Amino acid sequence: MSKEIVLALDAMGGDKGPSMVIRGANIARVRHPNLKFQLYGDQEPINNLLRRYKRLKPVSIVHHTEEHVENDLKASQALRQRKKSGMSLAISAVRDGGADGVVSAGNTGALMAFSKLSLRTLPGINRPAMVSVFPTERGECVMLDLGANIDCDSSTLVQFALMGEVFARNVLGIREPTVGLLNIGSEELKGNETIRQAASMLRKADLPIKFKGFVEGNDIPAGTVDVVVTDGFVGNVALKTAEGVAKLYIEYMRSAFRRGLLSRAGFLLARPALRALRDRVDPRAYNGGTFLGLNGVAVKSHGGTDHKGFANALSVAVDMIEHDVNPKIINELKRLHLEETPEMTKVVV
Amino acid sequence: MSKEIVLALDAMGGDKGPSMVIRGANIARVRHPNLKFQLYGDQEPINNLLRRYKRLKPVSIVHHTEEHVENDLKASQALRQRKKSGMSLAISAVRDGGADGVVSAGNTGALMAFSKLSLRTLPGINRPAMVSVFPTERGECVMLDLGANIDCDSSTLVQFALMGEVFARNVLGIREPTVGLLNIGSEELKGNETIRQAASMLRKADLPIKFKGFVEGNDIPAGTVDVVVTDGFVGNVALKTAEGVAKLYIEYMRSAFRRGLLSRAGFLLARPALRALRDRVDPRAYNGGTFLGLNGVAVKSHGGTDHKGFANALSVAVDMIEHDVNPKIINELKRLHLEETPEMTKVVV
Repeated sequence: MSKEIVLALDAMGGDKGPSMVIRGANIARVRHPNLKFQLYGDQEPINNLLRRYKRLKPVSIVHHTEEHVENDLKASQALRQRKKSGMSLAISAVRDGGADGVVSAGNTGALMAFSKLSLRTLPGINRPAMVSVFPTERGECVMLDLGANIDCDSSTLVQFALMGEVFARNVLGIREPTVGLLNIGSEELKGNETIRQAASMLRKADLPIKFKGFVEGNDIPAGTVDVVVTDGFVGNVALKTAEGVAKLYIEYMRSAFRRGLLSRAGFLLARPALRALRDRVDPRAYNGGTFLGLNGVAVKSHGGTDHKGFANALSVAVDMIEHDVNPKIINELKRLHLEETPEMTKVVV
Repeated sequence: MSKEIVLALDAMGGDKGPSMVIRGANIARVRHPNLKFQLYGDQEPINNLLRRYKRLKPVSIVHHTEEHVENDLKASQALRQRKKSGMSLAISAVRDGGADGVVSAGNTGALMAFSKLSLRTLPGINRPAMVSVFPTERGECVMLDLGANIDCDSSTLVQFALMGEVFARNVLGIREPTVGLLNIGSEELKGNETIRQAASMLRKADLPIKFKGFVEGNDIPAGTVDVVVTDGFVGNVALKTAEGVAKLYIEYMRSAFRRGLLSRAGFLLARPALRALRDRVDPRAYNGGTFLGLNGVAVKSHGGTDHKGFANALSVAVDMIEHDVNPKIINELKRLHLEETPEMTKVVV
């Protein structure tokens, strides 16, 4: 049996609160029998729920909290006024060694701020990035940053490339992940100075990654590369545009099948195949944005997901821990230090 | 009958060259009987093709050119070395009054560079923007800039908002278009200084537009606002990501219907509805990116489109001309001058 893993959960995060968290934990426990939980939040609803899950209860410890981080609270306010919230205490548990990772479906900005403050970044990393997995024509790819950093200099983008590569190799199991920098197409206008400099650093430096140069927006769903690197502003817009277009197409399809009797009959016949399609693009399967570059495992679940989606976010945390992603990132960065070139000194400062 | 409109066409642009251009022009001529054409390119294939379209021929004048702007040519090289190309001469025809607008499916960067140099920007406009129309859950929206300008200051974004509003009102026929600034969601990280400043200018200034504040990537396909304003880097990534995800979903759907006999039967029954769906999301229907802010009408067709898509790009040019979009933008900007506030002096400099 694998080594025991303890996850600290913000039981109050997410639109559905404790019931989603507890049910999700129960699913994850079946999937990963080596899991134990530290649950932070309002003890009464949590304990009531735990009574229903006989096998989850003995592997869970409940820590009562009075404070809660509201979804619309600014991160700076949360840092000052919600130090004793479930979110904050769950993160502290990781820092203090009481848990191997933390998962929350709560306020993203606050989770990022508490994690940065409490866990700090890995040595050699300027800023943590948010990474997630996307379905593509060829399988899956990872993209980072998805919104943790608006402006990124070229060194930061190079660090993102390294972290994303380690994530793709260890969490997605891709042997030699290819890496691309997100850019725009028009030849004349190819990117700003920052991106061009990052590309030149990634090309020149003797890095242990397969850098494929620039990619464009359509290359994300096409699966042209395994790791797409961009700043948090562009990454966030691309992520949300993709989610919106997916939703629009599913809506289009639904309304197409509602047109007339023949279409309805056709829908019934094709239903098993369409169900398989639905599962394939189920956003819950791709739930769980990981903060990479922190000195600890912190995963953000979508606030609007359900117990199945939350269970998948827990699996992402388990993957990060079982595959030693953070220690591997530290090792890659050490190699970077050893192979230091004039350019690379800038990268690792 | 409406006033005669003359379009100058770069007959050599696009992956399919003159045949797509001539067939597209023929479709557009049926749609808009007041259209006449100035065709620039290699006269031999053009004349051979025109012989097949008896009704197109009498309304077309062919101008032979020896030079051609290759797709991979840098804009700066094109400006120096392809002055006598069909693209360059077609744009000059608009400047010199020989045509009311130009349409090309060729090299985007070169088209932008020639247009800027030859047509110049409208008074009060710093930079032209590329605008296009997108299908949404509620109908259609316009987005700009789609790649003409990588970095935009806040004044430029305000000008984009004004131009996009005039376009949506006159080309899409939306009575009071709403306008949003593309941003990212996390409260703490809401945008950079430029975007926040643009929002504050749009809010404070007594502008004749309905500014709805910030929107996110998913708001584009959701149709939350009628006009989405962003810089050319983010806009280009969002556009191409959306196109890629749409392609991925159509591919998913196809493969779902290929799974087994029942699915195939279901597909046959639902085919009329699925065809309607296909037409609804047909990228050719949304072909034609317009350069807004130029002292003349210039429309860029997708290079990979076919004659139907090219005909739609021609319709976009006709709409721009018939609805006097450029004179209306100038008028809006004049109102801006009249209502000048300390902030707005910066906008219109």
